[in-house]
Amino acid sequence: MSRSRNTRAVLRNSASKPGRRQRRSSEIRERLFRAALDLFANKGFLETTVEDITEAADVGKGTFFNYFPSKDHILIAFGEMQLAKLEASIEEVRRNNVPMPDFLRSLGARMTQEPTRNPAIIRALLQAFLSTTPVRQATVVLQKRAHALHTQIVKIGQERGEIRNDLPPADIANVFRQTIFGTLLIWSLYGDATLHERIEAAFNVLWTGLAPRESAPGRSQVPFFTSGD
Amino acid sequence: MSRSRNTRAVLRNSASKPGRRQRRSSEIRERLFRAALDLFANKGFLETTVEDITEAADVGKGTFFNYFPSKDHILIAFGEMQLAKLEASIEEVRRNNVPMPDFLRSLGARMTQEPTRNPAIIRALLQAFLSTTPVRQATVVLQKRAHALHTQIVKIGQERGEIRNDLPPADIANVFRQTIFGTLLIWSLYGDATLHERIEAAFNVLWTGLAPRESAPGRSQVPFFTSGD
Repeated sequence: MSRSRNTRAVLRNSASKPGRRQRRSSEIRERLFRAALDLFANKGFLETTVEDITEAADVGKGTFFNYFPSKDHILIAFGEMQLAKLEASIEEVRRNNVPMPDFLRSLGARMTQEPTRNPAIIRALLQAFLSTTPVRQATVVLQKRAHALHTQIVKIGQERGEIRNDLPPADIANVFRQTIFGTLLIWSLYGDATLHERIEAAFNVLWTGLAPRESAPGRSQVPFFTSGD
Repeated sequence: MSRSRNTRAVLRNSASKPGRRQRRSSEIRERLFRAALDLFANKGFLETTVEDITEAADVGKGTFFNYFPSKDHILIAFGEMQLAKLEASIEEVRRNNVPMPDFLRSLGARMTQEPTRNPAIIRALLQAFLSTTPVRQATVVLQKRAHALHTQIVKIGQERGEIRNDLPPADIANVFRQTIFGTLLIWSLYGDATLHERIEAAFNVLWTGLAPRESAPGRSQVPFFTSGD
């Protein structure tokens, strides 16, 4: 490695104000990311080549691989972006003492803003989850982090007496995540304008199921499966 | 078409006791179907060829296409099998007046028996849903039929006063289906032994959300999103 590259690396890693080169680097990465998502949405994930992406982003083809090891890594970056939104939301709920239903309402809206509102992107993301490519392992890691963050949210809700505490927070977090992904999955098949309606209906039912149970019907206490199933 | 083929077609369509030829035909179709599902589970859907399937089923390669237009149609047949189970269950709940929570409990167990309990098969099925192949249109049709059947179940539950009636049955049916598919999706990523646990937790929460609300907390009545979202 040349001395100048070492210096650059040090500059990149320093906590000081980002230099021109670093700003330029972030800007190219962002451009590639946005161009790729647009192409996935309009053309399809499988049908989009790395060359399509670099052309749309107006950079040389080889440049792509300085930023992303493969096309699949755009989807991982997308997952990271969603996790960052989720992390920021948790900080907010801790700081501001927002009531849980209001917090979940605003979280749902924030997590399904553009570009998430695009069914082709959701389909591409879910296909990568289900694939046998190396990216699948990365999505399992992302899913575990999402589960840990949802568990934190549920714990905060339980500590405040706003979420039922007769179920472990990790189990409730699973149900929560499964509801979100199930809604995204079924909606993305149709790709219509019903995403927010579907999320609203799902959370309307889910929230009734999660709220502290002042006098819930006895039946609901019964485990769904007997252990012999 | 020769006279003998016409006669055969008439025999196949008659309501009389199936002839030897028809029994043989059903048997080969079943053998191809089971061999294909085993291969999808062990080798992966994309990695399995039609030749793999015909070899495992011990029939000539060309024979496959007398029964299924493509490998993808195995997945459609799988969907049809699940729908037939669902249809039979509805007849049962109508005839026997089974209480709704017990009915849903047994339905959940029945719908996730083998071969559904295999994560590779679920991943293959979901990937076909999300693909851009011609099979996708067929899965959308299957989904619509599943939705209609779930809507019937919810209506029966509402008529009997066992399911909340402040939401349209079609909306509740969507939430129900999204919960099932979200659970299958997330579970299939891990492919572990937690399917029934996950379904139990999901239905435990969902059922509390669906039961008639004798004194539900006021908050749960609030729509999740305001119309401006």
